[in-house]
Amino acid sequence: MGNVDLGKHQHVGGTGLRDKTDIILGVDLGGTSLRVLAVDRRNQILAVEKNPTKPDASASSLIKDIAAFSRKAAESAGVPWQRVLAVCVGAPGAVDPERGIVYKAPNLGWENVPLGRRLGALLSIPVFLSNDVNAGTIGEYVLGAGRGTRDMIGIFVGTGIGGGLVIGGKLHEGCRGAAGEIGHIVVERGGPRCGCGKKGCVEALASRTAMERDVRRAIRSGAKSVVLKLMKERKRTRMTSSVIARAMGKGDPVMLQVMKRAQYYLAILVANLVNTLDPESIVIGGGIAERLGEGYVAPIRATAREFYLRQDGRERIKILPGSLGDNAGALGAAVLGWRRLGQT
Amino acid sequence: MGNVDLGKHQHVGGTGLRDKTDIILGVDLGGTSLRVLAVDRRNQILAVEKNPTKPDASASSLIKDIAAFSRKAAESAGVPWQRVLAVCVGAPGAVDPERGIVYKAPNLGWENVPLGRRLGALLSIPVFLSNDVNAGTIGEYVLGAGRGTRDMIGIFVGTGIGGGLVIGGKLHEGCRGAAGEIGHIVVERGGPRCGCGKKGCVEALASRTAMERDVRRAIRSGAKSVVLKLMKERKRTRMTSSVIARAMGKGDPVMLQVMKRAQYYLAILVANLVNTLDPESIVIGGGIAERLGEGYVAPIRATAREFYLRQDGRERIKILPGSLGDNAGALGAAVLGWRRLGQT
Repeated sequence: MGNVDLGKHQHVGGTGLRDKTDIILGVDLGGTSLRVLAVDRRNQILAVEKNPTKPDASASSLIKDIAAFSRKAAESAGVPWQRVLAVCVGAPGAVDPERGIVYKAPNLGWENVPLGRRLGALLSIPVFLSNDVNAGTIGEYVLGAGRGTRDMIGIFVGTGIGGGLVIGGKLHEGCRGAAGEIGHIVVERGGPRCGCGKKGCVEALASRTAMERDVRRAIRSGAKSVVLKLMKERKRTRMTSSVIARAMGKGDPVMLQVMKRAQYYLAILVANLVNTLDPESIVIGGGIAERLGEGYVAPIRATAREFYLRQDGRERIKILPGSLGDNAGALGAAVLGWRRLGQT
Repeated sequence: MGNVDLGKHQHVGGTGLRDKTDIILGVDLGGTSLRVLAVDRRNQILAVEKNPTKPDASASSLIKDIAAFSRKAAESAGVPWQRVLAVCVGAPGAVDPERGIVYKAPNLGWENVPLGRRLGALLSIPVFLSNDVNAGTIGEYVLGAGRGTRDMIGIFVGTGIGGGLVIGGKLHEGCRGAAGEIGHIVVERGGPRCGCGKKGCVEALASRTAMERDVRRAIRSGAKSVVLKLMKERKRTRMTSSVIARAMGKGDPVMLQVMKRAQYYLAILVANLVNTLDPESIVIGGGIAERLGEGYVAPIRATAREFYLRQDGRERIKILPGSLGDNAGALGAAVLGWRRLGQT
């Protein structure tokens, strides 16, 4: 069952008012968890439902879960179903927002799933669809660290590295819907092999997966580290963000060195993006940024500023950690949902 | 004096009609030459004036030259001065289009030159200002190889590498006016030192300057090459685009190898830009592209397609050589001039 984890955006109102409150359900459909927020017109979170997803679940069963947790979120918010105007899903992969199709979501094992049609059939309300990273970017742009800036780039570091671009207040999705694939920017020709098949992509140098590879390699070479012990204690088979944060807190020398290296490559990524798009802000989100915040971003910012071209006296670019944490994607999906409703 | 070099855009009309033709003067202010086009509302070129610039000329004398060649272009076009609605200058450096100021143009030795005010005082018509690469990008977008696409990136390879971004039909200039500094995208951490002070920028790997460095290094190491002989014959102290084209034509092994390497890095640049912005087209301009055309771009395209993420069945991205040659910048300046007049 979903455990309720109300964030600071919660609006604690009397339940009586909820009968007249229109909401949208913002869904973050991750590879490992499903999160549904009930969000009102002022982007206040009225309820949160979250649940781990089973890695081997079929598309049908996952879509049924989304429907069930959507109804549950409305119920927790005390809002009758007729006041739920739409659901907007951020999905981890390539999507066609117009046709409501998830083309390819490797983490879910999905290909060409007509999510819009199938979820719509279960819920009888409009279903909107977006890429999860684009949703997270819009979340941080409208409600989080990017608020008040015109052009923003969101960088989300997790098992991979994804990005979203906001230009002139709107998501730039690109001619094939493939804009923001910044994890595959090559920053070191001939560098380590990436999951995409190429070498030297920043994802293969600075993602959590790359960091874990480097930590394990150092340990195999004889370096002392608490990382494996921390993973065992927490019953993790992977080096999660919480393990990273814990190891950093303990001053683990292997983790400190691997982190420094990852931050260096992320700084080159940031500088490359600044030299390309000259945005007003760059927001770095994902689990590591959520746990380490400014401690993670400060060295990235400092090195990036050495790398991008300076314009004397016009240093306005903000490089910040995200401020919405795990809610960024689902909140952004809700924001996108409200926008789409406004357009129709 | 400027020699007239009418391109294929020339509209050969009777001079009698010219009394009623409104024109704009598009100026490409390069580090080595000044080009002024007289352009009508349909973007037809009515006259071309071009002249080398003296490297040691003061800003005053260069601004006087711009004024003199502007008047001359109108005269050659047979258009009375009262029909010249504006002049728009593409300048090689950082500019403030709103205030008409060239902040910094290293190739001209300019800093904080109020070009708009000073040229306006000499010509008594509105003066608009743009960055030269942005102007060239708009030229290729509206009249050249990028015609008919929605989002386009222009890459101009010369002594440096510059870029311009068109998003949704409009130039994206960035929050500090610094968008498109794509020559300083790092593609090889720790690579050769760039003029900007950093290492591994694509400009330090694939510009004409970088290619010349690599050719000279190979020759110093004992490799046989016709390049120095070609430079001598043409009385060039630098390896110009025409020398490159000639050496390629002769199958010079050093040039072939250096070219292949430069094309490889440009392909990584193109792929990085596709993974970031997912544009409909990428147009590669500048002297080498003008001389070698498809022979230059085809290997870049092939390697870029290996590097950027593919979207099955949606391979619409065009990677093309520019089609306007030396006129791109001045034509684009004229297009920008017409747009600005339309806005005021």
